[in-house]
Amino acid sequence: MSVVHKFKENNRNYEWEGVESFPLEIEGIKGAVKNILIGENERAPHFIMRYFQLAHGGHSRLERHAREHEVIVLKGKGVVQIGEEKFDVTPFDVVFIEGSELHQFSNLHDEPFGFVCVIPNLD
Amino acid sequence: MSVVHKFKENNRNYEWEGVESFPLEIEGIKGAVKNILIGENERAPHFIMRYFQLAHGGHSRLERHAREHEVIVLKGKGVVQIGEEKFDVTPFDVVFIEGSELHQFSNLHDEPFGFVCVIPNLD
Repeated sequence: MSVVHKFKENNRNYEWEGVESFPLEIEGIKGAVKNILIGENERAPHFIMRYFQLAHGGHSRLERHAREHEVIVLKGKGVVQIGEEKFDVTPFDVVFIEGSELHQFSNLHDEPFGFVCVIPNLD
Repeated sequence: MSVVHKFKENNRNYEWEGVESFPLEIEGIKGAVKNILIGENERAPHFIMRYFQLAHGGHSRLERHAREHEVIVLKGKGVVQIGEEKFDVTPFDVVFIEGSELHQFSNLHDEPFGFVCVIPNLD
């Protein structure tokens, strides 16, 4: 189903019309909110576009899995760990994380850190 | 190959380190520049992230094809035609265009209009 989700800024959060924003309460993840921009609701057949926002001190899980990530930063400043390396990232920086690579996103700054992350639909 | 492509603003153009920017000289396309942010060079296995920028009066081809598009606007203002409908879009608006849907991106404004567009790797 083709669709346009209009962007709306809500206080310090990035949100979109027609997209639900929900906190991630999962072990190993801290201060993270997830928005599925294009996914099951839109019947995306091959890959899913999400937006994650990390509050000050927030981070994703340090993990490795088969799915690759294609990322573009939208907001704030963050750190991306890929393998044993760490990279500072700022808006519009692009990050490709190969499948099976150890990785983690963190926010050490006051401003929220937000990025779009696309993953494949794999079973 | 995991990689970070740092963003750089070059005059009115959006560009990235390690990414080649090239004009699209194809019938039906006008005033368009393409950047493959994550693709063959990064050995992206399932889907490809590109950035397109349309100059004033520029447009993509009015076309339909099997591949879907997952889009997020980064810069300027544009119009997206999906089927017979037209939508005004501005930064961070998200657009999903289903496979086989007629579509076109256009820029009627003075400022360049730029958007990220993800497509599947299909043969």
